[in-house]
Amino acid sequence: MSKILIIGHLNPDTDSITSAISLSYLQNKLGKNTEAVALGKPNEETQYALNYFKTEAPRVISRASDETKEVMLVDHNEFQQAVSDISELTVLAVIDHHRIANFQTINPLYYRAEPVGCTQTIILKLYKEHGIEIPPHIAGLMLSGIISDTLLFKSPTCTDEDIKAAQELATIAGVDLNDYGMELLKAGTNLSGKSAVELISLDAKSFEVNDKKIRVAQVNTVDFNDIFSRKEEIINAINEEISSNHYNLFLFVATNVLDSDSRIIALGDSYLSAERAFNIHLTENEGFLKGVVSRKKQIIPQLTVALSEETVSQ
Amino acid sequence: MSKILIIGHLNPDTDSITSAISLSYLQNKLGKNTEAVALGKPNEETQYALNYFKTEAPRVISRASDETKEVMLVDHNEFQQAVSDISELTVLAVIDHHRIANFQTINPLYYRAEPVGCTQTIILKLYKEHGIEIPPHIAGLMLSGIISDTLLFKSPTCTDEDIKAAQELATIAGVDLNDYGMELLKAGTNLSGKSAVELISLDAKSFEVNDKKIRVAQVNTVDFNDIFSRKEEIINAINEEISSNHYNLFLFVATNVLDSDSRIIALGDSYLSAERAFNIHLTENEGFLKGVVSRKKQIIPQLTVALSEETVSQ
Repeated sequence: MSKILIIGHLNPDTDSITSAISLSYLQNKLGKNTEAVALGKPNEETQYALNYFKTEAPRVISRASDETKEVMLVDHNEFQQAVSDISELTVLAVIDHHRIANFQTINPLYYRAEPVGCTQTIILKLYKEHGIEIPPHIAGLMLSGIISDTLLFKSPTCTDEDIKAAQELATIAGVDLNDYGMELLKAGTNLSGKSAVELISLDAKSFEVNDKKIRVAQVNTVDFNDIFSRKEEIINAINEEISSNHYNLFLFVATNVLDSDSRIIALGDSYLSAERAFNIHLTENEGFLKGVVSRKKQIIPQLTVALSEETVSQ
Repeated sequence: MSKILIIGHLNPDTDSITSAISLSYLQNKLGKNTEAVALGKPNEETQYALNYFKTEAPRVISRASDETKEVMLVDHNEFQQAVSDISELTVLAVIDHHRIANFQTINPLYYRAEPVGCTQTIILKLYKEHGIEIPPHIAGLMLSGIISDTLLFKSPTCTDEDIKAAQELATIAGVDLNDYGMELLKAGTNLSGKSAVELISLDAKSFEVNDKKIRVAQVNTVDFNDIFSRKEEIINAINEEISSNHYNLFLFVATNVLDSDSRIIALGDSYLSAERAFNIHLTENEGFLKGVVSRKKQIIPQLTVALSEETVSQ
């Protein structure tokens, strides 16, 4: 029987990569034959976690149907964020903490989503429900997912369950939660040596609202100037993406992980929807989002509402 | 704050009605303010269970947004099976055991689906995870859902987990599993006094596959003649449904709960897809499906594949 592949989303972040690893470990302990794979290479933050806990990066794939018919998805469900041949595959299980959209199956499946800050918080529950012990290096990777997704508990997506899970996992992993957390986040803000194209693709997700194609890219930083000193170069890269992929809106979000604010660049024919979504004025396509750090909770829903209203008023 | 409504699917069956009741009891114990409601009156089987365990039928609603903004869904997720104003509501949670399709949210939510035979089997897990005791009458209603959905464990959708859950719930409810189970199923096969329109609407679900509208109605019986002696009347009722609702396929399925076989009537411009789906020949739009009892596992996926192929070959 062929292996079940366990896959995170395109442009994988730390939660996506490490959740594939931790779920695969659990499933194999439960007697399944699974392999964690990824739809891209680890970013610098994720690579820091993998090095720290001495774990190989998952094999990178772009298609799955040549080697298996069965997959499990972690940290995503929308098909446009999934492996390219997702519609040819049977999705056995999804473990996720996002909204559900652009997802469907022919058969019943195992689907576990909770409105928590990180997929790993849910996977920790699954370990407990099945009574499977978590080895220290897996606990460390799970912890890294939670730190990354909640920006060390500063994101509004963070729940008490995430904090408790992180504390528990830090103990198993044998690390100091705050020290390790700050080191991990800082590793992800090292953007020197990245081209503008890389900056806008590192952690980018596509969405569709009423036939409009939206892309939201996010990078973490400890100093906005590191990024905005290269604004022109970044705008050129975004405009190329827009023309080759026909995005109606490309939103580039730089998030300061120390101050918990974001600065954005909005481009594309629907760029003004960002003004309505966040109740701001853009100056030269640029705006400041006070207290905004979460794409999932503070950006996507607001854009969805603004773009839906646009359609209604036409 | 307004109540959170907990709602099963249109044309409610025993699982839908009783799962709304058992989930509402659990959520209220957990401090939420919820009410179980239904999108229709209980059928005879469900009413038997409600009478046996001395429980009022849930209030029937057709819209929810006038009284609340927040709902939880049990035993369904597809919007065409949901309350009519579902798109104006926030879905906080879904507990289900069907495929996922035609479902989307703006925000992250709690979604718990497992490929088991009945929603109640999952709700029993939730009671355990939260350490909430199940009162005997709630256990009896949960048991009734499992018996109904698995045809007393004869359906291929039934899993070991459903059987274990039913045994556990029968003990709490203080009933003999097999005696009560047969009584409950028989109560649901009393179709005398039902009009043809009622027969084809009692337990009917709509689906869409590649822009084709499909409706599959199912009734349980202990004698096919009770139903097929009225074939002409039933065909007339189906044809009226087809012309007023523009169904491309209406499949009427009569299932013998003693022998675990089904006889079908297929009508509508795509009626021949039933021949391909089940590898049978229809005679005067009628066919026999040996060993088929489960709409979810033995009918819908096969129809979906047959209708998808139809589109491809055009």
